[in-house]
Amino acid sequence: MAMQLRFCGLKADPACAPVVVFGAPFDGTTSFRPGARFAPARMREDSWGLETYSPYQGEDQEDYDLADAGDLELSPGNAASAIRAVNCFATPLIEAGQVPVMIGGEHSLTLGAFRAALESYPDLHLIHIDAHTDLREDYLGERLSHASVIRRCHDLIGDGRIHSFGVRSGLREEFSFAAKKLDFHPFDLKMFPQVLETLGDLPLYVTIDLDVLDPSVFPGTGTPEPGGISFHDLLTALLALKGKVIVGADIMELSPLLDLSGASTAVACKILRELTLVIAAPGFHV
Amino acid sequence: MAMQLRFCGLKADPACAPVVVFGAPFDGTTSFRPGARFAPARMREDSWGLETYSPYQGEDQEDYDLADAGDLELSPGNAASAIRAVNCFATPLIEAGQVPVMIGGEHSLTLGAFRAALESYPDLHLIHIDAHTDLREDYLGERLSHASVIRRCHDLIGDGRIHSFGVRSGLREEFSFAAKKLDFHPFDLKMFPQVLETLGDLPLYVTIDLDVLDPSVFPGTGTPEPGGISFHDLLTALLALKGKVIVGADIMELSPLLDLSGASTAVACKILRELTLVIAAPGFHV
Amino acid sequence: MAMQLRFCGLKADPACAPVVVFGAPFDGTTSFRPGARFAPARMREDSWGLETYSPYQGEDQEDYDLADAGDLELSPGNAASAIRAVNCFATPLIEAGQVPVMIGGEHSLTLGAFRAALESYPDLHLIHIDAHTDLREDYLGERLSHASVIRRCHDLIGDGRIHSFGVRSGLREEFSFAAKKLDFHPFDLKMFPQVLETLGDLPLYVTIDLDVLDPSVFPGTGTPEPGGISFHDLLTALLALKGKVIVGADIMELSPLLDLSGASTAVACKILRELTLVIAAPGFHV
Amino acid sequence: MAMQLRFCGLKADPACAPVVVFGAPFDGTTSFRPGARFAPARMREDSWGLETYSPYQGEDQEDYDLADAGDLELSPGNAASAIRAVNCFATPLIEAGQVPVMIGGEHSLTLGAFRAALESYPDLHLIHIDAHTDLREDYLGERLSHASVIRRCHDLIGDGRIHSFGVRSGLREEFSFAAKKLDFHPFDLKMFPQVLETLGDLPLYVTIDLDVLDPSVFPGTGTPEPGGISFHDLLTALLALKGKVIVGADIMELSPLLDLSGASTAVACKILRELTLVIAAPGFHV
Amino acid sequence: MAMQLRFCGLKADPACAPVVVFGAPFDGTTSFRPGARFAPARMREDSWGLETYSPYQGEDQEDYDLADAGDLELSPGNAASAIRAVNCFATPLIEAGQVPVMIGGEHSLTLGAFRAALESYPDLHLIHIDAHTDLREDYLGERLSHASVIRRCHDLIGDGRIHSFGVRSGLREEFSFAAKKLDFHPFDLKMFPQVLETLGDLPLYVTIDLDVLDPSVFPGTGTPEPGGISFHDLLTALLALKGKVIVGADIMELSPLLDLSGASTAVACKILRELTLVIAAPGFHV
Amino acid sequence: MAMQLRFCGLKADPACAPVVVFGAPFDGTTSFRPGARFAPARMREDSWGLETYSPYQGEDQEDYDLADAGDLELSPGNAASAIRAVNCFATPLIEAGQVPVMIGGEHSLTLGAFRAALESYPDLHLIHIDAHTDLREDYLGERLSHASVIRRCHDLIGDGRIHSFGVRSGLREEFSFAAKKLDFHPFDLKMFPQVLETLGDLPLYVTIDLDVLDPSVFPGTGTPEPGGISFHDLLTALLALKGKVIVGADIMELSPLLDLSGASTAVACKILRELTLVIAAPGFHV
Repeated sequence: MAMQLRFCGLKADPACAPVVVFGAPFDGTTSFRPGARFAPARMREDSWGLETYSPYQGEDQEDYDLADAGDLELSPGNAASAIRAVNCFATPLIEAGQVPVMIGGEHSLTLGAFRAALESYPDLHLIHIDAHTDLREDYLGERLSHASVIRRCHDLIGDGRIHSFGVRSGLREEFSFAAKKLDFHPFDLKMFPQVLETLGDLPLYVTIDLDVLDPSVFPGTGTPEPGGISFHDLLTALLALKGKVIVGADIMELSPLLDLSGASTAVACKILRELTLVIAAPGFHV
Repeated sequence: MAMQLRFCGLKADPACAPVVVFGAPFDGTTSFRPGARFAPARMREDSWGLETYSPYQGEDQEDYDLADAGDLELSPGNAASAIRAVNCFATPLIEAGQVPVMIGGEHSLTLGAFRAALESYPDLHLIHIDAHTDLREDYLGERLSHASVIRRCHDLIGDGRIHSFGVRSGLREEFSFAAKKLDFHPFDLKMFPQVLETLGDLPLYVTIDLDVLDPSVFPGTGTPEPGGISFHDLLTALLALKGKVIVGADIMELSPLLDLSGASTAVACKILRELTLVIAAPGFHV
Repeated sequence: MAMQLRFCGLKADPACAPVVVFGAPFDGTTSFRPGARFAPARMREDSWGLETYSPYQGEDQEDYDLADAGDLELSPGNAASAIRAVNCFATPLIEAGQVPVMIGGEHSLTLGAFRAALESYPDLHLIHIDAHTDLREDYLGERLSHASVIRRCHDLIGDGRIHSFGVRSGLREEFSFAAKKLDFHPFDLKMFPQVLETLGDLPLYVTIDLDVLDPSVFPGTGTPEPGGISFHDLLTALLALKGKVIVGADIMELSPLLDLSGASTAVACKILRELTLVIAAPGFHV
Repeated sequence: MAMQLRFCGLKADPACAPVVVFGAPFDGTTSFRPGARFAPARMREDSWGLETYSPYQGEDQEDYDLADAGDLELSPGNAASAIRAVNCFATPLIEAGQVPVMIGGEHSLTLGAFRAALESYPDLHLIHIDAHTDLREDYLGERLSHASVIRRCHDLIGDGRIHSFGVRSGLREEFSFAAKKLDFHPFDLKMFPQVLETLGDLPLYVTIDLDVLDPSVFPGTGTPEPGGISFHDLLTALLALKGKVIVGADIMELSPLLDLSGASTAVACKILRELTLVIAAPGFHV
Repeated sequence: MAMQLRFCGLKADPACAPVVVFGAPFDGTTSFRPGARFAPARMREDSWGLETYSPYQGEDQEDYDLADAGDLELSPGNAASAIRAVNCFATPLIEAGQVPVMIGGEHSLTLGAFRAALESYPDLHLIHIDAHTDLREDYLGERLSHASVIRRCHDLIGDGRIHSFGVRSGLREEFSFAAKKLDFHPFDLKMFPQVLETLGDLPLYVTIDLDVLDPSVFPGTGTPEPGGISFHDLLTALLALKGKVIVGADIMELSPLLDLSGASTAVACKILRELTLVIAAPGFHV
Repeated sequence: MAMQLRFCGLKADPACAPVVVFGAPFDGTTSFRPGARFAPARMREDSWGLETYSPYQGEDQEDYDLADAGDLELSPGNAASAIRAVNCFATPLIEAGQVPVMIGGEHSLTLGAFRAALESYPDLHLIHIDAHTDLREDYLGERLSHASVIRRCHDLIGDGRIHSFGVRSGLREEFSFAAKKLDFHPFDLKMFPQVLETLGDLPLYVTIDLDVLDPSVFPGTGTPEPGGISFHDLLTALLALKGKVIVGADIMELSPLLDLSGASTAVACKILRELTLVIAAPGFHV
């Protein structure tokens, strides 16, 4: 009998696997169209239509100890407790040298996993790939909103350690702030390889808000922003991360019900496959 | 030029109209499928396809001073502040003798308007029409959840003053609680006229969770519960309220994007038309 | 090879068949949500999922000479010419003793077929089954709108010869007009058999705006009106027409794209099956 | 961490639970619109929005040993092997005195489970609730089609032992066959209690093709047939089965993607809850 | 209280603002799939999810006097009167030196605004960006159809003054006509900057049929034509218009209900933001 | 009267036309999301919104004898008999020198037409454009599955005669097999012109699984694979086929209901137009 709850390709034991995927089904502060809470469940379901073999990397998920730890149970209306729950889950993993890969949910949850990584790796840098600046001091008074998550990360990590790519929407003040305080590369990922090179072996947390993709590629998200990057652009960036020291990562803001064709969910699944292989491959293959 | 923001049929000045409709676009604690935040905007838009004349009552909204005060601005992720905002808006209206009619948004918001009414009318009774008991002490730790709203009202008003109709889903404990503490009439509205008669001229707050309707009639809601009542059943109950002392009311939990046909939104609009006429007609027509 | 353009069950030659179905794909004056133009094509396609045998009548379409003449070619933006085209198509049929059954398209087209019938049958009566009064003198200045079609029929036929059933929406003036000038039975079809009896062997034109059905049964229509009749109610009325002298009929306002489930299209197909059998059966079976 | 693959309310061990639910995700012979293969997965997911307590029966699934055995792995294009797989799964269960409850998938699969029951219970009777006769000798040459499943059951069990309710569509020959060979009660379930009474303690297999419900209640099915029964009608029939000797059952033909509102899936989940409680309650509660 | 009827970012007084956006919700001659009538309302609603700051231009709509004049009230079935209404609205604006920017609605309406501009600016040139030639003499007899609008403009303005870009669909005769009578650059916008240069300070009317975009970017339109341009291509063309003398413009043929993801509406909103800034910026910033 | 069953632009007599399009509405072995069976019917319907003139080729379908032979009648659950039916239909056409162009339906059907071509043309080569390898020995035990179709073709034709382009998904073993046994050009079509040149005047069968296109361009398919080619890439490849000896071709795996916008169906129609013109043009124009 088949009980296929977990992601296809992720069949190791979460207790000891080097890479541990988990779902964070929360979208409580979404300002426009909610639904990112359904991403982990729908991605698990649709992942069974995807191969575990990556022809881009010539690697197969079956050859690595990749785990799926299931979903966190998060109360729908409370962002602070959801971020706390993410932090509580990610902290022991990171302390044990495992790499958590979060499937959102909304972008504000990144704060929980990022803070867990920062505690173990004080020299952490943040790779931020997104359509939006997410640098508001607050959104309608809420400081833990998805629109403020990178600002909160900056509160923790300070200037020059956030490397932001692909942004094409935000307030004028946010663009000014980004230009001054961040390593800011709006509109595309052209500078991605160069920036990576400067980072050497520094520990990295990688957060991908999937709305960085053009809505033609990825319509299934709460706030579609025309003028985004292609799937090939994002894939190329992921492959460039191979060999880097990634200590935590996330893939956020798929809202699967907004794309009835299932293409957006397929994109998210494929990005997850490539990302887990990028993280796992160098350390365990040899 | 046409700028039709307001509901069709509601064109009086909110500052002095006896009946004031307002939107409360918040769905932050929704546990299953969010989207009730879009109800007020979509209802306003679609209301222009509806006549202002009710052939059921022989009355026309054009003949009464009915107002639309627009939407409250509510932060997406914070139920407590949303409930507070509803309370702040409703209190001065009720003190001035105006009747607020809230368009949800999720059911937890009822607490804000109900409390406002209770302060001005200490002998208030609550008419509760719903598919769900909404009597949980808390939901995943949250006490201000949509699943707890009637329990919170009971905290304020005590035993025997909540008259609950149509409920067909809940925990065993909730049904027990309801049987002991509420005037509880599950499954249908058959006892509605008799109960109303016992209430005489007592002030009433009427809360309608539209999911009391069968999903065939009203699929556009977050948690569809088969086995519900018909449109005709609900309409009949509304007409039975004519002449009663309604000091506040609400229509909650339309999630318009879940019903692409627009039928659910049309149901909500028609219920609003009939409800506003029921409230307005006896007092101002003569 | 299968080329199933025609309706399943309608395979006679239109040139001589006693009952001739045709499509009128026009929705140019629709005031709210257009799309009725797609009804004939989608009904033809989906009719092949329907049996030709009616267990309600114990009759099979295969046993009768029922024809499908295809669709009229109607220019999208011109109601007057579309009505004229319907009239031109229906007139020779009616003069030859054939019964045209039109699949709309919007309700205004009824005028073309009705006028054709009236010319051959000066003592014609109109059976009108609809959610809306359709009695406006004009709609935003247009006198040939779907909202005026019964008023235009009344212009031709005068008082007391329109028998209207099921109406639950309209202006106050329209309800007044209806009460004075029509044989008016709003809200339901309860009086349908009695009224039919009074009509004896008079020639009848039967126009069915499918939005008379409750939106739960028939969400696929431009202006859904909650509070409508059931499929069983409409079916019962159709069966009551058996043996009557029907000289023309139509089924209007299916907008198939608004109901992705296909249920509305199935309803329309089944109504068409029953209607064609009701018209054909008495005259040719014996 | 939550990994909620199983149905909410079904948490016993399938190896020994008296009632064992399993999914059969196959729709290979569907003639019109496929998609029933997705029913088990979508029902499991949405079941978590449903309470385990039935206010209709005053029983809670938590109080009984109900199990979910997951899904059979069925090859998409081969009906014969799918039916065989169902048979192989159901046979040992029935031999061990456990009651299998299948979630379809298409109706042809009933043959596999029905045959398993017949082998253990030679005096088995079949309760058949359906919109369609399903009595074709073959469908386009295929004898194992969903349109022939009851005919195949009749091949095995002979005259007078199939009790068929709610049928409203089929060929004229099928209706004739049914009238002669079956205990045939078309259109509704009015005779259901009387028929049950005549069956006393005979072992029963209950097959429910959910398209027996009116499309207003249950649009999410491949071949919607207007004119069906209400949710209340079906629920009443289920409750009438309480105390009967049910040795196998199934719920077939939900096609969840055809009803974006989720209402059809909710109907199927609720029917499953009531059915499992009806089967389990008398034997273990006392 | 929030009453957000107008476009986000357009808050000046239409009576005196240099740039005046207005909606023209008419789609009466649409030959394939109607629905463009819903574009202005849906764009206004969704514009509130968009920032007013353009990172492409480094400009913010808040810094300019941009106005939203609401929607024209247009009778559904009458193209001639809709075009006339557009003309009546645009004429006084243009005479007062204000720039009207129309949100369609179908493309035929361009004729009304274009004619208004031509009356004030006899040396007007037309910039035409579209997937279709729109050069038919008539469409099924109608001369004011969306398929004839550029032909009608040519009737008024003559050879060599229509600069057409991106066209990839039409009759052979239309392509011949275009090659002879228009400045015709089919398939893409590569020649756009060069052509603009030749036009110097001539007054321009810019009409954008959004179906020029590839359906991957913009599926929400009545007649999707594969092989179109990218968002970036169109954006680049808009930015090239900066500093030009634009005396009128329009954005046509968004049909929002055809793209449930909302991405097409987001594209239209962003094009509107960039266009209004392009028109407004040079004249008032300094 | 218009009865537009056939494809727009294909109006010759199938008995003698050099190019004969036919539909094969079968999707019985689809492993993920079925629905390709609806492609031929929906493409015929929507083809009437497309021009018959190709501006890319400067050719008009009206100038060639192109025929539409309608749909094969295929039993839903039996892949072997469906493939046989395709073979039976294609064989006499090919023997008569006519070129069959199949509209799928699922990819497994290619085997039927390919085998027919191979019998007449022993030196046949296969041009395979697809997102998937389709090289499995079997899929869940089925050897005639869509996932095995190219492997079955290889069984017939042997090494080096299958030229495969665009593949980006498959098992590791399939990629190995492809690298050894096929002329394999994964990910894109860059090598397409060079490969064609090497093939000279050899007879070619061209099979296009439309999922080779990126899901942004073509979301309407059962298994969307991000990272695909553009419409322009595929169009360029088609045009490169002009002058080649194409003796059979197919366009497979459009699943129209998965793309409500209709864009995927439009893509398929346009590819069909270009393909039929590419095949027909060199031989008959001169």
